[in-house]
Parts: sequence; C-alpha cells; structure tokens
Amino acid sequence: MSRDSYDEQLDRLTGVLAAMSRDASAAIRGASAALLGVDRGAADAVIAADPVLDQRRAEVEAMIPQVLVRHQPVASDLRLVVCALRIAGALERMGDLAVHVAKVVLMRYPVGVVPEPAVPVMTEMADAAARIADKTAVVLATRDRLAAMQLGLDDDEVDAAQERLLSQLVAGWPYGVESAIDLALVGRYYERYADQAVNVARQVVYLTTGTIRL
Amino acid sequence: MSRDSYDEQLDRLTGVLAAMSRDASAAIRGASAALLGVDRGAADAVIAADPVLDQRRAEVEAMIPQVLVRHQPVASDLRLVVCALRIAGALERMGDLAVHVAKVVLMRYPVGVVPEPAVPVMTEMADAAARIADKTAVVLATRDRLAAMQLGLDDDEVDAAQERLLSQLVAGWPYGVESAIDLALVGRYYERYADQAVNVARQVVYLTTGTIRL
Repeated sequence: MSRDSYDEQLDRLTGVLAAMSRDASAAIRGASAALLGVDRGAADAVIAADPVLDQRRAEVEAMIPQVLVRHQPVASDLRLVVCALRIAGALERMGDLAVHVAKVVLMRYPVGVVPEPAVPVMTEMADAAARIADKTAVVLATRDRLAAMQLGLDDDEVDAAQERLLSQLVAGWPYGVESAIDLALVGRYYERYADQAVNVARQVVYLTTGTIRL
Repeated sequence: MSRDSYDEQLDRLTGVLAAMSRDASAAIRGASAALLGVDRGAADAVIAADPVLDQRRAEVEAMIPQVLVRHQPVASDLRLVVCALRIAGALERMGDLAVHVAKVVLMRYPVGVVPEPAVPVMTEMADAAARIADKTAVVLATRDRLAAMQLGLDDDEVDAAQERLLSQLVAGWPYGVESAIDLALVGRYYERYADQAVNVARQVVYLTTGTIRL
C-alpha cells in the first residue's frame, strides 16, 4: 500500500471523528432545548440520532486494523491510533450523556424538569456545554493548542455551575426531593459531557505535541 | 523481533490488565467499606491508591506502539489492541468511580452518607458491584463467555437496586434533600461502575469470538 493511500485512510479517520464531534454537539444542543423548552420532539430527536454516533465509533474501531494491517506502522502512527480510539470513545459517550438528559425530560413530560429558580444556572450550564462542544470540533479540525486550553476554562465553568446548582438544591428547595434528584443528575450529565470534551482536546494536544498536560 | 518475544509482550499486556482489574476490585470494596462503615481511613486509602490505576492505563497505552511497531501486525493482533485500550480505559474509570464514592464519604464525615433505611439497598448495590468486579477479573483471566454473560445479570441487579433506591428517596425521604442527592449520586457511581465492568467483559468476549453481543 502506498503512503498516499495510507494518508487517505487517515484523512477518512479524521473525517469520521469530525462528524462524530458535530453529532455530539448537536446532541447536547438538542438535549438542552428539550430540557429548557420542555420540548418532547427535541428529546425524541436526540435519542433517535444517537445510534449514528455508536455506529461511527464502531466504524473508527473497524478502520484501525484496516489502516495498520497493510502498512508497517511507525511510532507516531500508533500514537494516532491510541488517540483516535480515545477520541471516538469520548465522543460516543458525549452522545450518551445528551441522551440521558433527554430521557429525564421524557420521564417527567409534560412537567418541566427545571423549575423557574434553576433556569439561570441550567441555562449557563447548557450554554457552556454547547461552547465546549463547538470548541472541541475546532480543536479536532485545527489541532490548535490554545483552543484546547480555552476548553478547560469552559469545563471549569460547567463544574462551577454544577456546584451552584447543588448549593441551591440543598438550601431549601421547594419542589421536592424528586425534582432535586433529577436536577442533580442532569447537572452531573452536563459535567461529564464537559469532562469528555476536555478528554478529546487533551488527546488532540497529545497527538500534536507528545505531551498530555493542558 | 521473534514471534516468541511478541507473545511475551502480549503476556505482559495481559498481566497489566489483570493487575488493573484487581485494583479496580479493591477500590470498590474499599469505597463500600468507607460508605457503609463511615470509615475515613478506608476512603483515604481508595483515593491514595487511584494513581496506580491511572499509571497502569498509561502503561498499557505506551505498550501498544512498542508491541506493534517492531512487528508486522495481523488483523487479530490489532483487534487485541483496540480491546486492550478499551479495557484499560474502563478499568481506570472504575477506579475513578470508586474514588467518587470515597469523596462523598469524606465530604460528610463524621456524618454517615447512608441513613438506616437505605442500608439494605446500598449493601445490595455494594455486594453486587464487588461480585461484578471479581467476575471481571475471572473473565479477563479465563476469557470465559459464560462468566461474561453472568456479569450482565449482576449489572441488572445493580440497576434494579438503583431504581429501588431512587423510589425510596422520592417516597418521603425524612433526611433532607442533601442526603437524597448524595445517595442518588452514589447510586449512579455504582451503576456506572457496573456498566464499565460489563464493557470489560464485552471486550473480552469480542476478543475471543469476534462478535460483541452478550
């Protein structure tokens, strides 16, 4: 196999990861729309779209042997493989977490999951997660280290919002224990979504520089 | 490089995964002891031990290029690589989830996280998670498909226990919203721990049979 067609295969791999990143971004935006707009259709759409992410992860995993088996790999190729697998795993998981949010919405529908006093903090969390998702796509496309570092700041914002949400819930939440648990778990899903986005960025930086600290 | 020394490298890889599995098992047992015994020392020990799992995952990831780069891999070798990376990732995550449980214990210490009425369901969850952890180690060592399938049953038990816990919390929990949120999140950590153990088993079966259904 010529080096050219090997490079073509790597381009295809990168293309699938970029598509996964767009899907993961659409998933969290849809989940947030469902959550904050009490929108059943949006929740259904997030759940219906998720198998594509699962299938693309499987595609990435199936491509790896194809890429390498007809090619004597060098160390940097193999680093790419390790990173591509971690990235695909993280992006698939981001889709799963958006699905978890959508399912909480459906479980309570037509009652909304986010009572008025929690709307600001949940909106902040949703916006930060959407920003993170977009930046993840940029980092994947550009391998830009600075963009990867900024992503860490958005992650801190999600973590801080989750802390504020939990403080609000334990400081005399008037909507009952079920509502408090729903919100705590939904906050946890956003927190994990952001963590996984940071994982993706970290792998991209590792791929570019060989060091993993952000 | 001779085939023999390649096999030696694979043995070393399998050995590291087995060690990770033992560590992940010790972590959840320690976390459960901390949780149910309100044992600060047990919680500290779980947190102190976790970097070993992180380091072993990094070791696995570093071994992959070493295993392959001096060897023309065939398709089944590369399948092993994909599986080994997923297994290492899942086992590291199991350790993280045990750490999350331990941190909740420390956050509330000396107050216990599990009030009397929740002790039975949390004990059941802890026992099922410990069984899953042990079976995961067996599956890794023996690649036994039947053991892998039984692991799915323990996972169902953890999920069912989490459902019962949540029902109990929303049916008039007298210990306050903070306690309910702590328990809902701790239950979620056990649920994810069990999911990851199932992931490990699934990868082992995939490795053995080439099909991933359990």
